[in-house]
Amino acid sequence: MLTNTRSDRVKAVRALSRRSVRSRTGEFLAEGPQAVREAVAFRPELVRDVYVTPEAAERHPAIVEAARAAAVHVHEVSPEVLAAMCDTESPQGVAAVCRTLDLPLEVVLAGLPADALVCVLTNVRDPGNAGTVIRGADAAGADAVVVSDASVDVYNAKVVRSTVGSLWHLPITVGAPVPEILDALRERGIRLLAADGAGTTLLHEADLTGGHAWVMGNEAWGLPAEVRDACDDVVRVPIHGHAESLNLAMAATVCLYASAEARRTSRPD
Amino acid sequence: MLTNTRSDRVKAVRALSRRSVRSRTGEFLAEGPQAVREAVAFRPELVRDVYVTPEAAERHPAIVEAARAAAVHVHEVSPEVLAAMCDTESPQGVAAVCRTLDLPLEVVLAGLPADALVCVLTNVRDPGNAGTVIRGADAAGADAVVVSDASVDVYNAKVVRSTVGSLWHLPITVGAPVPEILDALRERGIRLLAADGAGTTLLHEADLTGGHAWVMGNEAWGLPAEVRDACDDVVRVPIHGHAESLNLAMAATVCLYASAEARRTSRPD
Repeated sequence: MLTNTRSDRVKAVRALSRRSVRSRTGEFLAEGPQAVREAVAFRPELVRDVYVTPEAAERHPAIVEAARAAAVHVHEVSPEVLAAMCDTESPQGVAAVCRTLDLPLEVVLAGLPADALVCVLTNVRDPGNAGTVIRGADAAGADAVVVSDASVDVYNAKVVRSTVGSLWHLPITVGAPVPEILDALRERGIRLLAADGAGTTLLHEADLTGGHAWVMGNEAWGLPAEVRDACDDVVRVPIHGHAESLNLAMAATVCLYASAEARRTSRPD
Repeated sequence: MLTNTRSDRVKAVRALSRRSVRSRTGEFLAEGPQAVREAVAFRPELVRDVYVTPEAAERHPAIVEAARAAAVHVHEVSPEVLAAMCDTESPQGVAAVCRTLDLPLEVVLAGLPADALVCVLTNVRDPGNAGTVIRGADAAGADAVVVSDASVDVYNAKVVRSTVGSLWHLPITVGAPVPEILDALRERGIRLLAADGAGTTLLHEADLTGGHAWVMGNEAWGLPAEVRDACDDVVRVPIHGHAESLNLAMAATVCLYASAEARRTSRPD
């Protein structure tokens, strides 16, 4: 069992809380049983090391078993070592060092079906929002998530935690500038729907058949005019009461579920 | 200008961060410009005092004007005094002491239209989730929010902040036990739809015409069997991808917007 909180290994894992270190090493830390379980189940080839306390190993035997079955190194660590490695205050006894999993934009686009549902996050800054949107995109059956440059790092511990494992469930690409993303999607025949309170098309009026991408803006200031103008339609989730708006994650989830519903009614059983 | 961070007034306001003090005084603190703006605009008779820094008064003249026009006491305070009063790290220069605004369950129910849309929160513990659901209920045009006993206090600073003003926009009742809430809604002819991952009715199959209430459970363990059994239907938001679930606020918003959409198509223009 690893018990030395000041070892080089602990320092190296802890350093993954810095974006620069994640960029350089191509690794990040998944914290907590949900994230580690999904990483091991969906992308075991990307999991380098699992760190688990004796108590957590007993509470989550399936995670340890699945990791060992996938030939992932499983290390027993003291609670103090795990705490020293993690960003989260209560990592619930388990964490895993994983290889980053984003793919180049063109690779993600090449894998899309003709009636693809895509979620594009532009200039999203809040980690919880970004993670929750990725989770919502997964739940709604989106085929890919595209995160633009000038956005929060998806390997930030808070983003990873908020995705509750969805980070490993669907193709994701990060870091391309917004104009390049929009051009590439359009070339693939995917219609671009800007989700914005300034939209004149209401959600129920929008054409959600065929391949389309929801383009979501920053949580505070929405989408800039040039991005809205570059899209095929600007769609607004109707506000029926007195609320000023929905937050980004709620608006994205409502839009993505409207698309899922349109898919359900248009696809043969 | 109030500059003494150790005055009795500052201590009395600060004490409102404790639930017991809020219960005893019937007051709570709304922090930040969005909350104060909505309180003053929608329920000025419930606003006792507005506290504002000189800088915030300059940045938000409309809030100060509206408060004065409604004969609300507006006090200039130093940033240090405001910080000492508030729970939030950055209250953005303005806060208001407000009277609590929940109504007895029977009063809220008596005011409902025949095709009411109601959101019921049972045993919700996370402040951010509770506030976001209230905001979503407002946006979807719900006619009331019902919060059961054994739930987070809706006057908790984090709940108030997460509602982004929606707390003042629609009738709310708090503290009744779940069985009493369900009985009272049923007596008013409102159908009870439990939102739960264990549901066998998918959201698009649910009957969302006429008066109905969405009954939401705890964020971690959902609804207990006896509550599901007491409802007319148990409805599940379909999960199309590999996500385990949606979080409470997302599930509630998707359900409430499905109801809003059913309303739109059933109500005459």
